[in-house]
Order: sequence, then C-alpha cells, then structure tokens
Amino acid sequence: MPKINVKLGENNYGKAEVNLMKVRRDSARHEIQDVQVRVGMYGDFDAAHAAGDNTDLIATDTVRNSIYGLAKEGFGGSIEEFGKELVAHFCKVGPKVSGAFAEFTEHLWERIEVDGPDGQKQGHDHSFVRQMPKRTARVESRDGGQTFAVESGIRELYVLKTTQSGWAGYLLNERFTTLPETHDRLMASYVTAKWEYAVQDCDYNAVWERVYGQLQRTFTDHYSPSLQNTLYRLGEAVLEACPEISRIWFQMPNKHHLKYNLERFGLENNNEIFHVDPEPYGLMEAWVERE
Amino acid sequence: MPKINVKLGENNYGKAEVNLMKVRRDSARHEIQDVQVRVGMYGDFDAAHAAGDNTDLIATDTVRNSIYGLAKEGFGGSIEEFGKELVAHFCKVGPKVSGAFAEFTEHLWERIEVDGPDGQKQGHDHSFVRQMPKRTARVESRDGGQTFAVESGIRELYVLKTTQSGWAGYLLNERFTTLPETHDRLMASYVTAKWEYAVQDCDYNAVWERVYGQLQRTFTDHYSPSLQNTLYRLGEAVLEACPEISRIWFQMPNKHHLKYNLERFGLENNNEIFHVDPEPYGLMEAWVERE
Amino acid sequence: MPKINVKLGENNYGKAEVNLMKVRRDSARHEIQDVQVRVGMYGDFDAAHAAGDNTDLIATDTVRNSIYGLAKEGFGGSIEEFGKELVAHFCKVGPKVSGAFAEFTEHLWERIEVDGPDGQKQGHDHSFVRQMPKRTARVESRDGGQTFAVESGIRELYVLKTTQSGWAGYLLNERFTTLPETHDRLMASYVTAKWEYAVQDCDYNAVWERVYGQLQRTFTDHYSPSLQNTLYRLGEAVLEACPEISRIWFQMPNKHHLKYNLERFGLENNNEIFHVDPEPYGLMEAWVERE
Amino acid sequence: MPKINVKLGENNYGKAEVNLMKVRRDSARHEIQDVQVRVGMYGDFDAAHAAGDNTDLIATDTVRNSIYGLAKEGFGGSIEEFGKELVAHFCKVGPKVSGAFAEFTEHLWERIEVDGPDGQKQGHDHSFVRQMPKRTARVESRDGGQTFAVESGIRELYVLKTTQSGWAGYLLNERFTTLPETHDRLMASYVTAKWEYAVQDCDYNAVWERVYGQLQRTFTDHYSPSLQNTLYRLGEAVLEACPEISRIWFQMPNKHHLKYNLERFGLENNNEIFHVDPEPYGLMEAWVERE
Repeated sequence: MPKINVKLGENNYGKAEVNLMKVRRDSARHEIQDVQVRVGMYGDFDAAHAAGDNTDLIATDTVRNSIYGLAKEGFGGSIEEFGKELVAHFCKVGPKVSGAFAEFTEHLWERIEVDGPDGQKQGHDHSFVRQMPKRTARVESRDGGQTFAVESGIRELYVLKTTQSGWAGYLLNERFTTLPETHDRLMASYVTAKWEYAVQDCDYNAVWERVYGQLQRTFTDHYSPSLQNTLYRLGEAVLEACPEISRIWFQMPNKHHLKYNLERFGLENNNEIFHVDPEPYGLMEAWVERE
Repeated sequence: MPKINVKLGENNYGKAEVNLMKVRRDSARHEIQDVQVRVGMYGDFDAAHAAGDNTDLIATDTVRNSIYGLAKEGFGGSIEEFGKELVAHFCKVGPKVSGAFAEFTEHLWERIEVDGPDGQKQGHDHSFVRQMPKRTARVESRDGGQTFAVESGIRELYVLKTTQSGWAGYLLNERFTTLPETHDRLMASYVTAKWEYAVQDCDYNAVWERVYGQLQRTFTDHYSPSLQNTLYRLGEAVLEACPEISRIWFQMPNKHHLKYNLERFGLENNNEIFHVDPEPYGLMEAWVERE
Repeated sequence: MPKINVKLGENNYGKAEVNLMKVRRDSARHEIQDVQVRVGMYGDFDAAHAAGDNTDLIATDTVRNSIYGLAKEGFGGSIEEFGKELVAHFCKVGPKVSGAFAEFTEHLWERIEVDGPDGQKQGHDHSFVRQMPKRTARVESRDGGQTFAVESGIRELYVLKTTQSGWAGYLLNERFTTLPETHDRLMASYVTAKWEYAVQDCDYNAVWERVYGQLQRTFTDHYSPSLQNTLYRLGEAVLEACPEISRIWFQMPNKHHLKYNLERFGLENNNEIFHVDPEPYGLMEAWVERE
Repeated sequence: MPKINVKLGENNYGKAEVNLMKVRRDSARHEIQDVQVRVGMYGDFDAAHAAGDNTDLIATDTVRNSIYGLAKEGFGGSIEEFGKELVAHFCKVGPKVSGAFAEFTEHLWERIEVDGPDGQKQGHDHSFVRQMPKRTARVESRDGGQTFAVESGIRELYVLKTTQSGWAGYLLNERFTTLPETHDRLMASYVTAKWEYAVQDCDYNAVWERVYGQLQRTFTDHYSPSLQNTLYRLGEAVLEACPEISRIWFQMPNKHHLKYNLERFGLENNNEIFHVDPEPYGLMEAWVERE
C-alpha cells in the first residue's frame, strides 16, 4: 500500500493529576492549599510525533518537578496567579513551546471548630476538615506567556429546595409527552460553573468567595418556574455582584426527585416521599453574559 | 457425571440502593432526610434456590415499594428507628423470613445561610446544600423482629493536620526498611467509623452529633506519634463522651502527604510542599472497647 | 442597585444518561445494543431563561420518552445512524429548535462461548458477557437537521507492552530535569480516540471494527521512542486503513509503570518488578490529519 | 471527668492498594501479572495504640517495600501462592505479629491478536489488552504462618441473557406488591463470587480458569425462574466441575432491564426496548456448599 500523506494537527502534552499541597507556616496559624494540577504545552512538536525525535520534548516528569519547585518559589496567593506563573515558566523553558495551559481543581478545607479560650467557638490553627465543593481554574496563554486567558469555577455544589419550584406551561400536545404539570416540586442541582474576567487581574480569592455565597443565596430567593430560569437568575446575580466577571457558564443537571406513587397503597403523598432517581437527568448548559 | 450433593448455605435477598428523600412540612421550616437504603431478608429459601419454586419469595420490587410506603407511615426520627420499623415489617410480612437487616447511608444537608430580618445570618427554611461526610446505620434482627442489633457510623470524614504529628521509634533494623523517622509531618485520614450501643434505645441523632463533634475536636488536641495512637484516642474520647456506646470501630487510611524532594533543585522544603500520594496507603482498623 | 444588562449566550438543554437496550429478535440469534444517550437542543430559548416563560420548551422527560419510542421505530443499525434520526426528530419537533446533538456511549457485549453441536466453540444465541472498551459517537446538526457532523470514537482501550519502548534524547540540561533516559521500558496507555469522516455516510460499524483492530495491531508493531510517536503511528495507520476517515484525535495518558528500586535490598530488577503509579501521569492529546 | 477504662479490641494494620506489575522475561514470550495488594497484620499492638510506643510496629512503607522485594524473589505462579509467601513473611518479620492476611485484585490482560507467519491469528509476544473481569484472592493465617485459609474469587463478570428467564409464582397478595408476573424477561447480573478450598494446595490458576468458564456456560444453559435459582445452579456446577472447592459464595445484583412503556405512544414493545435502571436493584447473596 502506498504511504498516504498525514500531518499532525492541534496537539499538546504535559502532566495531569499532579497532587500538590502547600502549607504556609508564617505564623502558628497555618494556611493550606490542596490542588490537583494539569499542565499542557502547545508548540511545534512535529519532529517528536512524526520522526520519533525527542530533542524538543521536555519530560513530563520534569513538568511535575517544576510544579512542585515553582510552588515553593511562588504560589503566594490564588490558583489563578499560580497558573500564570506556571504557564509563563513552561512557555520560557520548553523548547518550541508557543503556549501552555494550567488547570486546577482545588480541594477546600475548613478549620475544625474548637472551643476558644473565651468559650467561643473558633477555627483551629492547624487542623482542617475537607468540604464538598471544589474550586477550579484554568489559565492559558497562546502567545508565549505574554497574555493570559483566565477562567475560574466551582464544581460539586449540590443545592436543593423543597418548595418554591414548579414546571408548567411547556409544550404539552406532543406525541411523546406524558409528564403532568406541577406548581410545587422539589428542585435540586449539582452545579458546575465557570466564569471569565472583564479585567486583566483582580483579587481572585475574593471574587470566588463572592460568587460562592451569591450562588447559594440566589438559589433560595425566588419561585423557580424552570431550572433554565434559575440558571439565568444565578448568572444575573453573579454579574451584578461581580463587576470583575464578564460572563459565566453553568452546567446544571436536574437531579430528579420523583414523588413516589403511594396512592396505590392507600396512602397520600403530599410532596413528602420522593424517589431520588440518579439517571437519566435533565441537563442544562448556558452562558450568561453582559450585554 | 453423577450429581453431587450440594446445599444452600447462609444467604439473604432484598433490594439495594433505594434512594429515598423524606420531607417534613409541619411548618414553613422544612426538615429533610435523604437516605440510600438496602434491605435483606434471612430465612428458609431453599425451595426458591434449589427447586425454582418462588412461592416463598417476595419480589424485591415489593421491598422497594414497602420502603417508600413505610417511610410515609413511619420514619419519624432517626434512621436507626426507621431501620427497626423496616426490619420488623419484613420479618412479619415475608414468607419464611426469620430475620432481616436494613442498612442506611444518609446524605447530610445544611441549610443555606442567608441574611435574616435582623441582619444576622440564619439558615434558610427550605433550601439546603449537601455536606461531604455521610451518616450510616445498620439494624439487624435474627429473631423475627423481636430484638435488634443497632450499629451507627460515619463515612468520608476527611481530616488533616499540618503539624503535631510524627512517626518514629518503629522497627528500623530490617531488610526492607528505608523510611526515615520524623517528628513533624503532615497527617491526614479519611475516617470511617461505626459503633455499637450499650443500651436498647437512645436518642440516636443526639449521639451521632456528639460523636461527630468529638472526633473532630480530639483529632486536634494531641501530638500524634502514630495513626494508631490517634485512632485509639478518638475511640477513648467517644466512649467517654457517649455512655450509650459500648464500642467503636475505625478504619483509618493514612492519606500520605510526602515532602517533595526539592533539595535536588537547590530549594529548601521546610514542610511546605507535599505530594499527596493516592496509592498505596497505610491502613489501620481497630475496635476500641469498654473494659 | 440598578439592574445591569445581561443576556443569554450559547446554550442547550436536553436529557443525559438515558440508558437504552435494544434487542433484535428477528431470529433465534438475538442481537443487542446497549447504549447511554444524551440529547441536547440549540435554539432561541430566551423567553424560558430570562422571563420564566416555558412555552417554547419541551420537557426533558419527553426527550427520554422520544429516545425510547424512536429506538423502537428506527435504530436499525449503528449508533451514528440512530443519532441522525434523533437529531432530525428534535429539530423537527422542538419549538424554536435550530439544531441538536446526540451523544452515545455504547457498552460492548460478546456472545458467551459454548460448545457447539460439532464440538467446536461457538457464540451463544442469546447470552452475552460485557467487554471493557466502549464505543462512542456524537452527531450534531446546526441547520435544523439538514446536515450532520458525525464523530465516532472509542474509550477505555487499555493497552500495554512490556518491551520495545524507550524514552531518550529529550531536553536534559534543565533545572528540574532528573529523569534518566531509558531504552527499554514498559509502556501502557488507556486510549481515548475519536474521528471525523471524509464522507457523508458509510458503514459506521465496519469502520469502527477496522479502527479497533488497527489500533491494537499498530500498537504492537514498532519500537516506540515516545508515546507521542506511537500516537502518531496509530493515527497514520487508521487513516491508511480507513479512507472514510478524515482525521482522528487521541487522548493518551502515559500509565506509568515505574521500575521499583530493589537495589536498596540487594536485589537486581531487570525490568521485572514495577510500581503502577496511578497519579500523576503524562498526558498527550493530538489530532492526526490528512494533508 | 474521671477516666473511663477502655481497651483495644480486634485490630490490624498494614498497606493497601499496592499496585504491582511483575513481568516474566524467561523467553521472548513475556508473561505478566498485574495486581493490587493489601497486607494486614494481627498481633499485640496495645503499646502503640494505648501508649504511643511504636517499638513493635513495622512501617507500612516497609510493608510496601517488602511486597515488591518478595515479588522479585518469589511470586512464581498464582496470587494465592504469593499470598502464602507474603503472609508467612510478615508473621516472621513483624514484631508481636500473630497472624496476617494478603488480599489481591488481579487485572486480567489478553495478548493482542496479530497475524502469525502462517496467516493464522495469534497472541502477540509482549503486547496486551486489559479485560473487564478481575480475579481476586485472600490468604490469611491466624497461627503465625503455619496454616493458611485461602479464598479465591472473581469480580465484575457482567452477564446478560435476552430470553429464557422469568419471574412468577412469588407472593402476590400483599399490600405493597404491584409487580406483574412475567415468563420472558431480560436477565443480567454483575457477578461477584468467592470460594474456599477442600484441599491444602492445588493448581489455583487452573481452578480459576475452570470456574470462569463454567460460570459463563451454566449461565446460558437453563430457563431461569429467578436469580436465586440461577445463583444456585452456578454454585452447583462449579462444585461439580471443581472437586478442589468446598463452597462458593455469590453476590448477584439483578441489573434490571425494564420493558419501556411504549403502548402510551401507540407502539408495541415485544421485549425489544428496555430501560436499564441503575438503582435500585435486587441483590442476592448466598453460599452454595457441599453436603
């Protein structure tokens, strides 16, 4: 068979799932950051792919070492800032590297609550307990580390309300439609969100905390006619609270809580007993943006 | 080939992963319980197994229906009490059933924090956010529902301390031993615990809360020479705080945080930069009991 | 606070993780297809999001019903063809729908091997055992179901070779580089691939089988100087074997098998004893394309 | 509060999830074994737990090193034999160790099929592809390594039949029973099995292969009136085929495939279209034993 002509398209390489814990011990009150990092590099890596010539490759083991080494020298604040440091480093160090990205999943820990000397509850100096939601970030440069696209986010924020939610007025006269309308249902979602910035730089930690609080509060404050409307309201509230953010994306599964049919057994079910059905689920994805 | 003689040994059947949410709407301040339930029945089920005669079997679909139906009629308080109701029911209803068990994994939710009318933070009436640790329980009867063995527990309690932990004085002169001693390390564990009761009945919810708080506080309050010693102290503290509990079991993985070797790069690592190694891990299991 | 101006950006909604098994009983030799489906719709859904007006929404429960109903009426061959049917349907039925996508993960089953009447092994007529790799597909239309972009793929293809792989000649004189070169290592990857077509239509099942076989054979047939080079060779071989395919993308983690340091214990390790390290891992992604 | 009296109960410690690959290179045709190992030790570890005195502890890091070191020196055949080597070693080496266990999960790999010189398909010498089912084993000694209890098993064997299965004749006149009888359904299970031996030693690899084949063949060969009956037949067939085995235990979830209600849409469903429901599921557990 005669050889066909093929070429390398868009590609990247690097190290994934680098688990890094940084402890700051400047005082007796320790601070921790617990992150899983992925770094990837873009560039002209044709020789390695097509000819098996590794001259222009950096070992992914070196990527790992670099992440730990740079975390010691830098990583003074947010994962977003550390992402810029990492991306700039690999753009500088990696042969033929034209761009790079760093992705983070940060595990959140709260201080364990103990009795303080005044009898008041206070957070312990060096003991922590893991929380459920995760903070995420992605930093990318395509121009060799001169400018950065920054994206921040949240994952595994599982919220639920037991009333003030309905689903009605949708397309009803359709062959496969059997679902009845309701004006009082249980609504739950396992929120993933990510946002982009209107500014080059800001206090990323402060913005994240503001988004995190706002998402929860807005979830509580309205009657929800659909998950789509709640998603939009969440986006609107975040954009109002955070001028630093240009747009925000949500992926919101509808974690169905189905009223169990107890009438068959002579029992009434006034929205008390639900089957939590893991699959399938409604899934909504949308960007909410400034006009 | 001549038939050999075989017989049925210890066995049970039932339904697993029944996801049940119960909402209590007695007032505007809703209460929720979100549980995954498994029920199994013991008894003389030889005919079904050996002869394909289903006369004495109850459909596992019926087990499911029953869990939802009984949750409506009962389930007024703790999962432990509901477990007794379920076990008693299946002992009564299931043909040839001599005993049964009910196992629970309860997802914990906290009220979302909002601003109250007085400007103080308060928990919302009907909106919740999922927490990470899970509450567990197992109730079993082997005498047809007359007496119950109750076991309660906790899973996915992930705790970490950045100092006040060491590992030294262990067997050192051994062929395969290369680990150096340390008097200051990071210690973390993903605690699973379960406990048995010294009493027939008690306020299971109150005991669980007491254990949950005590485990966290005791984790903070000592220098730990080993995970084994911390495990023992946790058990001791729980038994002191909870006269209702007769003994407690822990499974505690040592979630290793390994100081990354930065000296190779001319950097000092004063317990600041760690590799969080997911596998393998030290694993300790022990009962701590009253004498 | 004065309202800010926000608008809805790119968005879609639908149903995810719809688990569908179709059994074809045309003869005693049954055929099965076991798929997990996600469907999403694009269109003008501003009223639902911004105003809570559901008039133009179709219930995601209807999406589910439709998938099962259309699987009965259609789904005569490949998941790719069924994807076109689904996408065309939702473009036609959904109000204000301008486009849609259908994504599939197909679980693969092999017939259980039994003794045939002639003493030869043969596959059973109606009994199956699940295989590990999964087949995937994604079909999308952005023009109301007139034209389709089709993408096929494979996931969870875990391959390993115990020799004929090395890693040398990469950037060595770098601050964070400590990894030594090797000319004989163990190489393994958990391959994800997806490909696009040069043709509007073809025998998707036949192409998939050809790719599946080719990936495995090409993995065996060369000395690998890097995972990047093997990735490229896999792509090249697929493009040679399948004129129907225009380009193919791979995500290939380097599942590290690290030679365990036994010299410390006076033991030689001639590439016999490896630690399989789950995290972190090198990760390569690339498109291989026709020139 | 006066100190209460507590003591250490049943306990063990060791290392879990040690991932070990052994490659045998005695000829060009390499052999591999890919296992995840857990080792635990029993003994008098009171001083460590209660007094924080580590004198009698062995570092779990040493357990890890030992597993790799002993895999080099021994591990000539089955995981069961290697388990005996490990258990005997830790009983000898560990201070105050009275017993130990070793648990294995073995990942199974098949040789990749390539064209042989004669045009016939053959397995490649050093290239492999991962299979889905896993082989398991547990070896324990409670008498310091003099005698061993050996248990072997299989996990993740997912089998399915599209006919020759029903569910009828069960308890029908019961308050919560709504399920209709059926004489033709789809039956599937994700089989976990483990077995004990009637002999001190045997060719564990050969027995495992025999069980693995027998389970699949027996699954095909009968009309199944219940999962319980099929479970029993599987056990009976294994005990017939393997005189080395004294008894066998199964955990068999009923992976429900529910006929989707298409009649609502004017479509007939002759056991063609099923919803594969992940949760909840019927769950059967039983020992089948020699009389």
